Amino acid sequence: MDASEKTIERLCLYRRLLVKGAFSGAKNVFSHDISKELGISAAQVRRDLMTIGFAGSSKTGYDVDGLVAKIGAVLDTPGGEPFVLFGVGDLGRAILHFFSAHQPKLRITAAFDIDPEKANRVLHGCRCHLPEALEETLRATGVRLAIVAVPAEAAQAVADRLVAAGIRGIVNFTPVVLRVPPEIMVETVDIAVAMEKIVCMTRLREPIQEEVAS
Amino acid sequence: MDASEKTIERLCLYRRLLVKGAFSGAKNVFSHDISKELGISAAQVRRDLMTIGFAGSSKTGYDVDGLVAKIGAVLDTPGGEPFVLFGVGDLGRAILHFFSAHQPKLRITAAFDIDPEKANRVLHGCRCHLPEALEETLRATGVRLAIVAVPAEAAQAVADRLVAAGIRGIVNFTPVVLRVPPEIMVETVDIAVAMEKIVCMTRLREPIQEEVAS
Repeated sequence: MDASEKTIERLCLYRRLLVKGAFSGAKNVFSHDISKELGISAAQVRRDLMTIGFAGSSKTGYDVDGLVAKIGAVLDTPGGEPFVLFGVGDLGRAILHFFSAHQPKLRITAAFDIDPEKANRVLHGCRCHLPEALEETLRATGVRLAIVAVPAEAAQAVADRLVAAGIRGIVNFTPVVLRVPPEIMVETVDIAVAMEKIVCMTRLREPIQEEVAS
Repeated sequence: MDASEKTIERLCLYRRLLVKGAFSGAKNVFSHDISKELGISAAQVRRDLMTIGFAGSSKTGYDVDGLVAKIGAVLDTPGGEPFVLFGVGDLGRAILHFFSAHQPKLRITAAFDIDPEKANRVLHGCRCHLPEALEETLRATGVRLAIVAVPAEAAQAVADRLVAAGIRGIVNFTPVVLRVPPEIMVETVDIAVAMEKIVCMTRLREPIQEEVAS
């Protein structure tokens, strides 16, 4: 399958929308229905679904259950994909909570933190360890994905250690641009960028408040 | 200024990169230096900087300090832009911590939670209130931006209330697609989408592990 990163991101959004019953139990859905909900063009929706080989009909649209199953076949690892988490501060705990409550297909199997107080505690169903246990845990479990939720100044060192220990993909919750070898995937969830964007977009929509220097 | 949402997002990334000294104190930087660091094409970088009216020279590139100032003039509200936060669970606390530690230009001036235990406590420098205090607080402070970090099932009702109280922009940390009037900006920070994307991208890069149904 030849799907770009952006296509995969959109497939996640399509599935979310369909699974959440945005179309109130409809059996079929048209590309323009999806388009309207997500603000993605209908042509783009059709191209993406063509990419994964899912065909609709111009009369009845796409079969919802079939489409959800097809996207799942593309996106999901059978049995669910395990992550480890590095950093169990407020953000790390929020991530653990989020996973345990909402994401049966994504599991955090172990967490790591330099704070000895946290080691061997179980938070939201996940056991915390000291960083020393990282390499052995990854060897024993075969986990290939990690979430980094440490303070910014520790982020690069943690990423280096994760890569050296065999991690293939990182979800980065720090504002640091992580330097990793090209074969390692990094997806950054950037809280500050979202904030700055909303500040700026809100201002640009209200020219009366405009104080931008020319 | 005619900058699209995507341009603004990239401007945030450029500034982040320049401010963090990615170019180790260099006085000038070329579009291809920025391109290499961020994985955005050099032509795109040049187009974005042209959009905000910042000119470089083909010989010496862009002046770093001047560029940071120019992006700031476009993106920042003088004096910093205040937010309110709705939802003070693990994620809300992580957001408060993040703001107080790293973001002098973005401030959370008040937080709201339905838990009476949290009302009137001060967390990371921010006072928490019961939701009843929302309307009065917004009236008194003129805050126009809100962060939503409540459980998914409460998200839409909170968004409705925020919009009714005069909020113009929402940063949404829930997995819910919020329905708001067209003049209200919503930026969603979607944790689950980042996770699913890294799972899928990592698998697609390793065809030997491929178990995708055809």
